[in-house]
Amino acid sequence: MLMTDIIAKKRDGGALSREEIEFFVRGVTDGSIPDYQTAALLMAIVWRGMDRRETLDLTLAMMNSGETLDLSGISGVKADKHSTGGVGDKTSLALLPMVAAQGVRMAKMSGRGLGHTGGTLDKLESFPGFTSALTHERFMSQVERVGFAIAGQTADLDPADKKLYALRDVTGTVQSIPLIVSSIMSKKLAAGADVIVLDVKTGSGAFMKTEADARTLAREMVEIGKMAGRKTVACITDMDQPLGNAVGNALEVKEAVALLKGEYTGELRELCLTLGSCILTEAGAAKDGDEAREKLIKGIEDGSALAKFAAFIAAQGGSEKDVYDVSALPEAPVKYEAVSEASGYVAHIDAEGVGLVSMHLGGGRATADSAIDLAVGVELHKKRGDAVGAGESLATIHARDAGSAGRAAALLRGAYTISPVRPGPVPFVKAIIRSEG
Amino acid sequence: MLMTDIIAKKRDGGALSREEIEFFVRGVTDGSIPDYQTAALLMAIVWRGMDRRETLDLTLAMMNSGETLDLSGISGVKADKHSTGGVGDKTSLALLPMVAAQGVRMAKMSGRGLGHTGGTLDKLESFPGFTSALTHERFMSQVERVGFAIAGQTADLDPADKKLYALRDVTGTVQSIPLIVSSIMSKKLAAGADVIVLDVKTGSGAFMKTEADARTLAREMVEIGKMAGRKTVACITDMDQPLGNAVGNALEVKEAVALLKGEYTGELRELCLTLGSCILTEAGAAKDGDEAREKLIKGIEDGSALAKFAAFIAAQGGSEKDVYDVSALPEAPVKYEAVSEASGYVAHIDAEGVGLVSMHLGGGRATADSAIDLAVGVELHKKRGDAVGAGESLATIHARDAGSAGRAAALLRGAYTISPVRPGPVPFVKAIIRSEG
Repeated sequence: MLMTDIIAKKRDGGALSREEIEFFVRGVTDGSIPDYQTAALLMAIVWRGMDRRETLDLTLAMMNSGETLDLSGISGVKADKHSTGGVGDKTSLALLPMVAAQGVRMAKMSGRGLGHTGGTLDKLESFPGFTSALTHERFMSQVERVGFAIAGQTADLDPADKKLYALRDVTGTVQSIPLIVSSIMSKKLAAGADVIVLDVKTGSGAFMKTEADARTLAREMVEIGKMAGRKTVACITDMDQPLGNAVGNALEVKEAVALLKGEYTGELRELCLTLGSCILTEAGAAKDGDEAREKLIKGIEDGSALAKFAAFIAAQGGSEKDVYDVSALPEAPVKYEAVSEASGYVAHIDAEGVGLVSMHLGGGRATADSAIDLAVGVELHKKRGDAVGAGESLATIHARDAGSAGRAAALLRGAYTISPVRPGPVPFVKAIIRSEG
Repeated sequence: MLMTDIIAKKRDGGALSREEIEFFVRGVTDGSIPDYQTAALLMAIVWRGMDRRETLDLTLAMMNSGETLDLSGISGVKADKHSTGGVGDKTSLALLPMVAAQGVRMAKMSGRGLGHTGGTLDKLESFPGFTSALTHERFMSQVERVGFAIAGQTADLDPADKKLYALRDVTGTVQSIPLIVSSIMSKKLAAGADVIVLDVKTGSGAFMKTEADARTLAREMVEIGKMAGRKTVACITDMDQPLGNAVGNALEVKEAVALLKGEYTGELRELCLTLGSCILTEAGAAKDGDEAREKLIKGIEDGSALAKFAAFIAAQGGSEKDVYDVSALPEAPVKYEAVSEASGYVAHIDAEGVGLVSMHLGGGRATADSAIDLAVGVELHKKRGDAVGAGESLATIHARDAGSAGRAAALLRGAYTISPVRPGPVPFVKAIIRSEG
């Protein structure tokens, strides 16, 4: 089999056979196919697309390029969750204990990532002593005993995706439905869960800018998950403004804890209830969405979700008391109010702009070896549709020093659009996509 | 400027600016752009194409990536010729002396190439003592004095094309009109001629299989040549069967010499008269095509074209007498007749199939360092439309030994389609394309 023939076939609009896709993925993984041929094929895939069978074959070949987790030693149905990402997304921190408190176990691998804040692992390191470096045995036994665990992704999981993603990033080939689907789903399938719930964000702050594109991506992922034998549901949710009020590592942890304590009732809670309901019903832990929501809300009210989170933090090296009293978490020395210059209604908040503020304050990573400041970030007081008076605070900037705080406040004001007219309501959950089959 | 932005712009269907194209070509030439990014952009160009302004900018940037020849020190109008290639194409060997005999000088750089036979330089090395390694000064003075020269392409000419072509060859990105046009025209422009005549082949044995594709390529090259200030004409000619009767290095030289001696009157002569007429009229050496043809025919009849060729061979290290008497040229020890098994008319000769016979006999190169057997090859006795009886010879195989000759004869028979019906005539010269401006 020749890589040049495979490239030419896709360039001319043909569908690649399973053998051709497996040859390609094997060659990428073992380095026998040079990067320039891979890059040419990736651009041809962006151009010509892949049908569902090709996408499934690519996903499975990537999944099988490295280690796959066998969770069958753990009791009951195991669930996993993936988000396509956005600004202020601390969903996993609250969702996992909420679901685990209802008896459905979650085994999650997570990353650090580049961007405006750290990844879930960085955020959790706000808890003194917390570690995500779990051995396989410790990970498995913690999921069994505590109900969930969050560990760093092992180097052996989906090595084909690591190589392909690095190349896509520098060759303009990120934006392709089959390439996105195979990248996400190969990792999720390799991680071994029975139930996979996908949070596909849409809006100006999301990777998928339009709801139509988000639906297409969600539909493909759900069908691929089903074809691979997993119960897969996708929720399409709003990322036209930051999620919740906190953007920044420790600030986001505190918001998730507030949610678990019943002190936060915004759209982040709605998101956790929606995703959690999908998981409970797919896992057979609730007969329908209404019963699932009731159970999840009761888990917050009776403190069992918060207790699950505390047990999780303790199991991974932290202290339970730091969950019940978050004062030991990093706190920035400077707090500065970013006040509105205009009065009116918040018409739009540019999520990426708010992300840049966090980045500017030192809360994110520009390169893989950048240090992250866990304490800094932004606490939004006004969200879309809120009334605001001139001189009123839009957000509190949490900064390392006054200089960066002042610049951050100016950037933050620029991310807000204040209008004399109150914008109409926007549904937060746009759709829930299940397999059509 | 970022290569990722340039890739994304072309991927999304945008037109690249001159600055972006120059940045790309500079980065390819100096190695600062990695091959995987170049490969991604090449595939995006195959996909999205380039408009004429982009193609011109790419051509000029490639031309300027290395040395360009200044032929202004040579008297009169200087002409050059390029063929898109095919089987049995020895046109330059006869065309250049025919044109030079009429007072229009030709300065030609040529290559060795991979394929069923060697390139023009290999063929010429059939003359004992012939060399194509001319210094710049010797090349210039020979064109001035003898009327034409054929030298090896210097390493400094169009280095961007060398890198791009090598990458296109292994990334499925050869077939793209703007990439083909810029590859051919950047080299022709760098070689400095005032008049450029292009022989664009079409048919089953050509790179451009359909006449429509050949016309598109010809049209683009002619317009780009004109925009770059050169008189440029393209002829679209038949390559649905091998050109002439000889395929093989020394055999092709002998056929070209026969043409110059007035002993060959087939379509190769028609091609030389057509291309030569274009050159003479563009160069102002004839008032129209009819006068040009007359002059060229007279040059054959009065021996002046043959004398030019002999002077050229002598100037480049060979002996004039080997032109007038070709018995010193390499000759294969085994001659074997490939006889027809059927009787009827030759409906089609698969040019690539005949090329493979030559390759099989050792007349071509599989890799850049393969040795070539100059003596071997095929002499076709039957061309399209000819009547043939069962047991009659289709071709003489010129081979190193009887074993390879027998296998070659079987392959050759397979390249012929014999039909009970005589095929209709096919025009050899399909069109002459001049600038529309």
